[in-house]
Amino acid sequence: MEKNLWKHIRSIKSKSPLVHNITNYVVMNNTANALLAAGASPIMAHAKSEVFDMVALAHATVINIGTLDEYWSEAMLLAAETARALDRPWVLDPVGAGATPFRDKILKQLLAFKPTVVKGNASEIMALAQANRDPTKGVDSTAASDEAVAAAHTICSTYNTMVCISGATDIITDGTQGVQIENGHPLMAKVTGMGCTASALIGAFIGVAENKIEAVTAAMALLGIAGELAEKQSDGPGTLQLHLLDKLYTLSEKEFYDHIRISKQ
Amino acid sequence: MEKNLWKHIRSIKSKSPLVHNITNYVVMNNTANALLAAGASPIMAHAKSEVFDMVALAHATVINIGTLDEYWSEAMLLAAETARALDRPWVLDPVGAGATPFRDKILKQLLAFKPTVVKGNASEIMALAQANRDPTKGVDSTAASDEAVAAAHTICSTYNTMVCISGATDIITDGTQGVQIENGHPLMAKVTGMGCTASALIGAFIGVAENKIEAVTAAMALLGIAGELAEKQSDGPGTLQLHLLDKLYTLSEKEFYDHIRISKQ
Amino acid sequence: MEKNLWKHIRSIKSKSPLVHNITNYVVMNNTANALLAAGASPIMAHAKSEVFDMVALAHATVINIGTLDEYWSEAMLLAAETARALDRPWVLDPVGAGATPFRDKILKQLLAFKPTVVKGNASEIMALAQANRDPTKGVDSTAASDEAVAAAHTICSTYNTMVCISGATDIITDGTQGVQIENGHPLMAKVTGMGCTASALIGAFIGVAENKIEAVTAAMALLGIAGELAEKQSDGPGTLQLHLLDKLYTLSEKEFYDHIRISKQ
Repeated sequence: MEKNLWKHIRSIKSKSPLVHNITNYVVMNNTANALLAAGASPIMAHAKSEVFDMVALAHATVINIGTLDEYWSEAMLLAAETARALDRPWVLDPVGAGATPFRDKILKQLLAFKPTVVKGNASEIMALAQANRDPTKGVDSTAASDEAVAAAHTICSTYNTMVCISGATDIITDGTQGVQIENGHPLMAKVTGMGCTASALIGAFIGVAENKIEAVTAAMALLGIAGELAEKQSDGPGTLQLHLLDKLYTLSEKEFYDHIRISKQ
Repeated sequence: MEKNLWKHIRSIKSKSPLVHNITNYVVMNNTANALLAAGASPIMAHAKSEVFDMVALAHATVINIGTLDEYWSEAMLLAAETARALDRPWVLDPVGAGATPFRDKILKQLLAFKPTVVKGNASEIMALAQANRDPTKGVDSTAASDEAVAAAHTICSTYNTMVCISGATDIITDGTQGVQIENGHPLMAKVTGMGCTASALIGAFIGVAENKIEAVTAAMALLGIAGELAEKQSDGPGTLQLHLLDKLYTLSEKEFYDHIRISKQ
Repeated sequence: MEKNLWKHIRSIKSKSPLVHNITNYVVMNNTANALLAAGASPIMAHAKSEVFDMVALAHATVINIGTLDEYWSEAMLLAAETARALDRPWVLDPVGAGATPFRDKILKQLLAFKPTVVKGNASEIMALAQANRDPTKGVDSTAASDEAVAAAHTICSTYNTMVCISGATDIITDGTQGVQIENGHPLMAKVTGMGCTASALIGAFIGVAENKIEAVTAAMALLGIAGELAEKQSDGPGTLQLHLLDKLYTLSEKEFYDHIRISKQ
């Protein structure tokens, strides 16, 4: 797989997929900039009056519930239903899964439209899997990676989806085969919306690649490597955010393969 | 005209016009920062309960439909109607014109309130002109500049407005006289919301200048020159975004006139 | 008091308080990044369906009316009512107080739920105090500091709250004792949302400290010192915004005490 990853990164720049985002207010600017820097074409649109048209226009749709409310969750459900009906790839980022009953209710409804990829941190993935079994069980926010992997497998088989657990180690699985990536830097966790950027990039990559597990791996490796190279030039989380965008734009094939740390999971 | 442009840039800093924005979520932070850096005073407000008061308070209103929905489009229409009724200058940025029937419907209603300036890229300007004639005709996103100029002239005469087509070459026309500006740098297209920043700056300039075509030209030249100077210090789109704000704040008269590339259109 | 301030800054990093924000679209990204850089854990959530749960989860809630509308103001009122009912600390940032009757109406309703701290600039604090007495009286936007202090005292006694007036000099008062801070740099006023960042940091500090006046003072001193140190490395407002986040993350105890300029008010 490793030798194919750069091909996917290059094809974002050549095909410039249109990525439709219904995402949260906090990260919209970063997400759009990260997609542009990587070579994709972002559009943010959430109106119920046009969400059908936007899903139909785009190569992929990314739904991120970070700042959801009643109206936005209806738009998200419409978008997810449309993506499923038109067989378009879509990504679900279950921000804050387990934090409130409202989030868990909407997430359950969204999952019913079988996202192509679910991307969350370990706590969110565990909350999602538990929400499906026992809604009264608490969420362990200090979730161990292997517990989250078991939860990911449950989600894969229940919803016929892929799962990407983002963290110090990123784990990507379709329930059968798995990949883990050790790139990135802890300072990235001090910049808001890094996980949301990951989800948006995944949207771009699955929008143009047939091999979805390779596509998700390429997206996560690109972000992790860009982040760790950006960190070397940064004095803190403020400058990291900007250098990361620069690196997404300028990263070379040689830099990519010099730094990638990937293995079978 | 050229020798008058710096006067307009200086008067933004001395008069600090209040610019009321109903704009999209993606660019609100950048737009506010660009207005502040240029010397204007931004306010973002969209509540139907206060939109009348905000238009009345401000020197100019900027309406950008980037992330419109049903509620926001009602607020935009109220603001446009108020600006027209009070004879206040206002700018329309028709983001994504032609992309969905919903956008085109709202744009048609907004245009009826005769914006002082319509600012869009070539595809958007062509879509706007076509929406007015044949809604079933597709939009050519690789629109040639001269086709867009014909569309701009149609919009000028139909709505008694000025049009600014932003792109590698910016074209400003009131239907009779025209100006073109060759400033800027291609990397600016890799930063989200540059066009939206242009529209916001136009709002500031038409808020204080009698000569509207000079005002729009000054705004576009300022942004283009700041962008090309910022690019020289940047390693990619991330750092460009920040250096551009610095340059909007620090640009001198000498730098401005050393770099301006303007001609009659 | 001065010798205790660093203890509060350190305890944000060790306790990482969850700060729930219902804030404006313009500053959400900056606010979240500033909270992360200082060591807190931000969550932005405004849905009426979950606002009760979020207030209950969080160490403190910050309500900022910058881009309020009818729905958001209902969510804000629910959050304020919940914070009061659960005896949770909460901050009110009355952005644009006095600008429109809508803002003043919502602010009056919010104040009835007795915020722990009201943080505004001099004009906003004066508008708030006047709204309570004579709604027809105009707002002096060039308000002198001592006029604002009288207004602050009125607000303290009327609503049993603390007030922080942000500006070139920050003034913090509970109506009896007062502190003033001379840190910061004028260039900070050219970056949007600095006041909003101040309110968010105040939320983090009052979320974990018993001594509220020390907590607010520590938050304002941290931001002011980080800002003035960041300015030394900056070429304008664009780069200042980023270096400020870096400084919030890296500031040392020695740097803090070398620069603090604080006195009794």
